[in-house]
Amino acid sequence: MGFGSTFLAVDWGTTNRRVFLIDGGAVVRTERDDKGVTSVEDFAAEAVAIRERFGDLPMLLAGMVGSNIGWRPAPYVAAPAGVAELAAGLLWIDDRTAIVPGISTLIDGRPDVMRGEEVQLLGAVAAGLVPADALLAQPGTHCKWVEMAGGKVADFVTAMTGELFALLRKHGLLAAQLSGEVTLGDAFLEGVEAGKRRDLAASLFGIRAAKMLGQRDDADAASYASGLLIGTDVAARLATSSHDTVHILADPVLGGLYAAAIQAHGRNAHLIDSHAAFVAGINEIVRQ
Amino acid sequence: MGFGSTFLAVDWGTTNRRVFLIDGGAVVRTERDDKGVTSVEDFAAEAVAIRERFGDLPMLLAGMVGSNIGWRPAPYVAAPAGVAELAAGLLWIDDRTAIVPGISTLIDGRPDVMRGEEVQLLGAVAAGLVPADALLAQPGTHCKWVEMAGGKVADFVTAMTGELFALLRKHGLLAAQLSGEVTLGDAFLEGVEAGKRRDLAASLFGIRAAKMLGQRDDADAASYASGLLIGTDVAARLATSSHDTVHILADPVLGGLYAAAIQAHGRNAHLIDSHAAFVAGINEIVRQ
Repeated sequence: MGFGSTFLAVDWGTTNRRVFLIDGGAVVRTERDDKGVTSVEDFAAEAVAIRERFGDLPMLLAGMVGSNIGWRPAPYVAAPAGVAELAAGLLWIDDRTAIVPGISTLIDGRPDVMRGEEVQLLGAVAAGLVPADALLAQPGTHCKWVEMAGGKVADFVTAMTGELFALLRKHGLLAAQLSGEVTLGDAFLEGVEAGKRRDLAASLFGIRAAKMLGQRDDADAASYASGLLIGTDVAARLATSSHDTVHILADPVLGGLYAAAIQAHGRNAHLIDSHAAFVAGINEIVRQ
Repeated sequence: MGFGSTFLAVDWGTTNRRVFLIDGGAVVRTERDDKGVTSVEDFAAEAVAIRERFGDLPMLLAGMVGSNIGWRPAPYVAAPAGVAELAAGLLWIDDRTAIVPGISTLIDGRPDVMRGEEVQLLGAVAAGLVPADALLAQPGTHCKWVEMAGGKVADFVTAMTGELFALLRKHGLLAAQLSGEVTLGDAFLEGVEAGKRRDLAASLFGIRAAKMLGQRDDADAASYASGLLIGTDVAARLATSSHDTVHILADPVLGGLYAAAIQAHGRNAHLIDSHAAFVAGINEIVRQ
C-alpha cells in the first residue's frame, strides 16, 4: 500500500480527464481527453486502459471520480483540512488505487463542498506558489473562493457565477442579447462597477432596459453581463476578506477577467498555473 | 377624441389579456383570456372582435400591447411621471383607440423601463389605496419596486427575481432539487434570512452543498430557494429605502411571500388589490 516515486495521477472531472505519469516528482507524460465521469460507465475498465497506455503503476485519482456520479463516493473531510487530512482520508479501491477525498465546511452555518479543487489548492502552497495564509480563487462554472490558513483549507465559498452566466446566455429574457463574445474592455469593467451594488437580479434587468433606452449596443452586452456577474462575485467575497492579494488558479482568459475585477476593487491579483499546482498537490499527498 | 363615461379598458400583457367594460367609473363587465401579445398577430382585428363582444366603444389599452412585440410601440415617458404625463403621452391608433405609454428612468445612471405597471401604480394612489409618497412592489417574473413621490412614479428598479427562479427550476445544477412546491414556512424564512447576505450566486450553491451534507431535505429546497431569491431582492431594496411600509400589488400567494420577507426585515407589508388599482388608474387617465 503506497505509491513509490513513479505513479499515475488522474484529475478526473465531470466533463474532462487529465492523466499524469509522474516520476521523481516530475511530470514525464500527460494526456487530456473528454472522458469525464458523466461519459464513463465502467471505471475499473478505464483504470485498466490507463495502465495499459501509461504503465502498470499505482494510481491516485482526484475530482468528481470520487462523487456519487463517479467510480465510488469518497467521503468529505471537514475543513480545516491539509495534506495530512487528505492523505489520511484516501478511499482505497485496491492496494494501489486510491481516490482523494473532497472537503466540506459548515462554518457560520454555511454549508459548502469541494471535490477536486483541494489538490490544486494544497499543491499551490506546497510548491511555494502562494503563501500558507492566503485567499485563493478558482473561477469556473462554480467558482471556489478559499481561505488558506497555515497551509490548510480553512474555509471556502462556492459561487455559481459561471453557471448563472451560461443559463442567462441560453434561456430567458436576456439570451438574445448575450450571444456576443466576452472581451476584457470598457463594457466588462462597467459591469464590474455595477456589480459593486451586489444587486444581481436588478442589475441584470438593467441590461434589457439599456437596450430599450438605446444606452448600450448589444455587441457589448455579453461583456457587460460577464463583468456584472464576476464583479458581483468579487464584491461579495472581498467584503469579508482583508487579504490585499487574491491568487487565481485558472486558465489565462477567465483568470484575466477575474484579475481585472479584483484590481477594480483595489486589490492585487496573482495568476497561478493550475496544472503545476495540481501536480505539486498530488506529489505532496503521495509523499505523506 | 375622448372616452366619455362608458369605455373599454384592456390590460394586455405578454401572455394574458383582461378586458374591462367601464361605465361611470365602475367595472360592469370583465373578461380574462390567454390572448397575450405573443399569441396575437392582427391587433386591429382583435380590437374589432373586442368591440363586437363588449360594444362599439372607445378603447384604452395598456401593457405590452404598446411594445415592439405588440400593436405599435408607444414611447416611454421619463420619470417622474404621473397621470397627467401619461395622458399627454397617449399613442392614438385612431380617434377612439389609444395606448398608454410606458415609463423610463435613468436616475443615477441606472436604466429601467416599465410598461403596463404604471396604470396600477398611479391608480393605487388615485383610489386612495396607498399614500402619494410610498414604496410599492409589484412582484412577478420581473418584480418592480417603485418609489412614488407626490403621487407620481419618481423612480423604480426592476429585479429579475421570478425569472431567475424559473430558470433555476428548469435548467442546471439545482433543477432536480427545486421541483417541490413553494410554501410559506420555515424553509422559506431560512432562505429570506440567507438572502440578507445579498450573495445570491454563493447562497444558491449552498442549496447543493446542503443536500450533499444532509443538511436539508430536498422537499424544502424550492421553498428555501424562493425565500433566498425574494429575500435577496427585498434586502437590496430596503437597504436604500427608509419607508416603514411596502405596499404590494400582487395576487395573494406571491404577495404573501413578499410580505413575509418584508416583515422579516422589520418593515410592514400592505397587500393591495391590483385589479382595483388598474381600474382606478385607467379611470384617472380617462378623466384627465
